[in-house]
Amino acid sequence: MKMISGGVCVAQGFKANGIHCGIRHNRTKRDLALIVSDVPAKAAAVYTTNLVKGAPLTVTKNHIADGIAQAIICNSGNANTCNANGIEIAEAMSVLVENATGVKASDVVVASTGVIGQPLSLDPIQKGMPELAAGLSANGGEAAAEAIMTTDTVKKEVAVEFTLGGKTCRMGGIAKGSGMIHPNMATMLVFITTDAAISSQMLHMALSTDVASTFNMTSVDGDTSTNDMVTVLANGLAGNEEITCEGEDFTAFMQALNSITVSLCRSIAGDGEGATKLLECSATGADTLEAARISAKSVICSSLLKSAMFGADANWGRVLCAIGYSGADVDVSKISVKFQSAKGEIEVCRDGAGVPFSEEKAKEILLEKEIEIKLTLGDGPYSATAWGCDLTYDYVKINGDYRT
Amino acid sequence: MKMISGGVCVAQGFKANGIHCGIRHNRTKRDLALIVSDVPAKAAAVYTTNLVKGAPLTVTKNHIADGIAQAIICNSGNANTCNANGIEIAEAMSVLVENATGVKASDVVVASTGVIGQPLSLDPIQKGMPELAAGLSANGGEAAAEAIMTTDTVKKEVAVEFTLGGKTCRMGGIAKGSGMIHPNMATMLVFITTDAAISSQMLHMALSTDVASTFNMTSVDGDTSTNDMVTVLANGLAGNEEITCEGEDFTAFMQALNSITVSLCRSIAGDGEGATKLLECSATGADTLEAARISAKSVICSSLLKSAMFGADANWGRVLCAIGYSGADVDVSKISVKFQSAKGEIEVCRDGAGVPFSEEKAKEILLEKEIEIKLTLGDGPYSATAWGCDLTYDYVKINGDYRT
Repeated sequence: MKMISGGVCVAQGFKANGIHCGIRHNRTKRDLALIVSDVPAKAAAVYTTNLVKGAPLTVTKNHIADGIAQAIICNSGNANTCNANGIEIAEAMSVLVENATGVKASDVVVASTGVIGQPLSLDPIQKGMPELAAGLSANGGEAAAEAIMTTDTVKKEVAVEFTLGGKTCRMGGIAKGSGMIHPNMATMLVFITTDAAISSQMLHMALSTDVASTFNMTSVDGDTSTNDMVTVLANGLAGNEEITCEGEDFTAFMQALNSITVSLCRSIAGDGEGATKLLECSATGADTLEAARISAKSVICSSLLKSAMFGADANWGRVLCAIGYSGADVDVSKISVKFQSAKGEIEVCRDGAGVPFSEEKAKEILLEKEIEIKLTLGDGPYSATAWGCDLTYDYVKINGDYRT
Repeated sequence: MKMISGGVCVAQGFKANGIHCGIRHNRTKRDLALIVSDVPAKAAAVYTTNLVKGAPLTVTKNHIADGIAQAIICNSGNANTCNANGIEIAEAMSVLVENATGVKASDVVVASTGVIGQPLSLDPIQKGMPELAAGLSANGGEAAAEAIMTTDTVKKEVAVEFTLGGKTCRMGGIAKGSGMIHPNMATMLVFITTDAAISSQMLHMALSTDVASTFNMTSVDGDTSTNDMVTVLANGLAGNEEITCEGEDFTAFMQALNSITVSLCRSIAGDGEGATKLLECSATGADTLEAARISAKSVICSSLLKSAMFGADANWGRVLCAIGYSGADVDVSKISVKFQSAKGEIEVCRDGAGVPFSEEKAKEILLEKEIEIKLTLGDGPYSATAWGCDLTYDYVKINGDYRT
C-alpha cells in the first residue's frame, strides 16, 4: 500500500466538482460540492450521535438504507439543521442531482455544514446545479474538497493505492473539520471513495470499526456537531473479487481505510479552528482498550492542557489531572508522561510524580508544530491514540463572531 | 434570612488571617490563610472525584473522619499534588498549626491550590506561622479570602444571618475559583463557617445535598481539579438547639447554606479565568431532574457557546447542539430558548426551530455582564440552573503561561 496524491477522484469511475453557487456571500469561496460514481456503489455511513440532527442526515440514512449510493451533494455555509422545512430541502437537493446527472434521487447522499437554524434556500443550489454537473470531471476532487470547507484554512485530501487479489485498488477521501469537532460514534463531514469491490455489509463493518479508533478519537473543541457524517462509496470498478467476509482482503481494505482516516484526523485536528499545533496523544500500557482511549482523549480535550501547548509550557500536571478526571480506570502511581516533537523527546513525569527536566529543552520541543504527548499507563497490553489541537486566541475570535 | 457583609468571621467564635509567607514570589500577594474556631466545630467536607488527588485532601479526610475540626490552613501557589512527600508536608502543616494555636493537629483541615507537581517546601510556611497565628482576628476574614486566591481577580466572600429556634445564627464563606473549574461531586476551595449548632451527620447531609445543585453545576473550563474541596465548620456558638434530624430548622439551615453556595458559584463563574461575562443557564420543564441538570450544564460548558457569548452573538444553534450531545433524554422538538439580561429578554428558538428576532435587540442584551440562557425543555416538573462564563482571549493567555 502506498500514499498517492489526490482525493475523491483517484479511484476509477469517480468524478467531482465544486462551485460557488451563492449560499455564502463571499464569491471567492466555493459552497457546493458534487461527487458522482459512474456506476452505483456500495455505501456505508456513520452519523453524529447528537440528538439534534441535521435534516440531511435523516435523508441520507433513508437513501442508503439499501447499502447503495451513487452521488454525494454537499453545501457549506448553512447546516440545514433546526429548520422546519429541512427534510424537504434536503430531498429537493437530491432531486436536483437526479435531474442534472441521471443518478436516482434515492441514491444521493446529502450533507450540509455551516450555521444552525437559518433556513436554507434551494434557489442558489437550483441555479448552480447545471454548472456544477457540467463541470464534473476526474480532476474535480480538489474543487469538491474546497467547496465543503467552512472555517477550515486548508483543504483536506488524501489517497492511497493498494492491492486486492492482484488488482490495483485506490481509495481517496476529503474532509471538512475546523470547529464543533468532537465526534461521537461518527464525525465531521468526510467523504471517501474507492474502486475496491466490497459488500455493503463488510463496508459498514469496516467503517464502524475504523471510526472508533480514528474520528471518535479526534477533538477540536469538545462540541459534538449536529451534522457529523462519514461516508464511503465503493464502486467495485477495480475488478477485484468482492470482499464478502473477513480475511486477508478485508484486512488489506481496513489498512487502506485506516491510512485515509488517520491522515484526515490529523488534518482536521491540525487545522482545528484557530489551531497553531497538532497534538497527538498516545496512551500505551493500559489494562483495557477503553482506559487507553478515554485517557488519551481526555488529555487532548483539556482546555488547560490545550492552552499550555499553545504557550509551549510543559505543564504536565494538567496531563495527569485530565487522566484523573477522565473516568478511565487507571493506577495514577504508574503513569509516566513524555513530550516529543521533531526537536526530540523529554520525560517529565514518572510513576505519577514529576522528574527533574530541562525547561529549556522542553520549551524547544513544544515550540514545534506537531507535538506528541506520550502516556504510559502501566504494563498492560492496550494502546490508543487521540488527535487534537491547541486552544488559541483565534479559536475564540473565530467563534465569537461566526455568524456575523 | 438576610445577606450581610463579611465572610468566614461573621459567625461567633471564628477568627482568621492571611499573609504572604513566600510560597509565591510576588511579595504583594498573600499566600497562606488560617481560619480558627474558638471551640471544636462539627465539620463536613466534599472532595474532588479526580483520581489524581492532592495530598492535602487525603490528610483532611483523615482529620475530619470523626466529624470534628477546629482550624483550616490553606496555601496558594502550589497544589502539593503529585509530589512524593505530599502527605508528609500536609501533615507537617497541621502540626505547625497545633504548635502556633493549640488546636490539635488532627482537627486541622489542610488545603493547597496552585501548580501541580512541584514539591512544596515547608520552610516559608514554618517561618510565616508565628505571624499568621498572632494576627488571627475577627477582622481577618478578608485577608484569608485574599490568601487563597490564585488567578482569581476578585476575592469571594459572602455571609447570611438566619434564625434557628429563636436564636440568631450566621454563616459565611470564602472561595477560590478561576481555572480548572468543573467540579464533580465536590469543588474548588470553599470554606464556610457558621455558629449554628448541627450534628456532623446532618451537616454532611446538608453539604452533599447542596453541592449537587450548586458547585457541581458550575464550570469554567471543563477541567475537574485535583484539589477541589468544600468544607463547612459549624461551632454551635449561636446557642440554638442542635439540629439532629430533618425538619424546620434543617430546612432553614439548608436555605442559609444554599444562599452562601449559590452566591459563591456565581462569583466563581463570573470571575472564571479570563471571563468577561457570567453565564447562568436555567432549564425548566424537564421530565427528570437529571435531564434539567445535564442540559443546563452542557450549555454552559460548550466552548462554542462560550465564545459566542464573548462575542455577544445570539448563536442559539450552539445551545441546541450542546443540549443534543449532552446525553440528556429530551425531546428536541419541544425545546425553546431565550436570552435575558438587564437589557431585557428575547426568544430565539421555539419548539426546536428558530423564530425571527431582532439581531440588534439580541446584541444589546448579550453585551451585558450577566447573561441568562433560559431553556424550556417541555412541560415536565423539573428544573436546574448552571453557572459558567464566556471563553476569551485572556483564558488562553492566562493558561498559556501559567507556570512561567
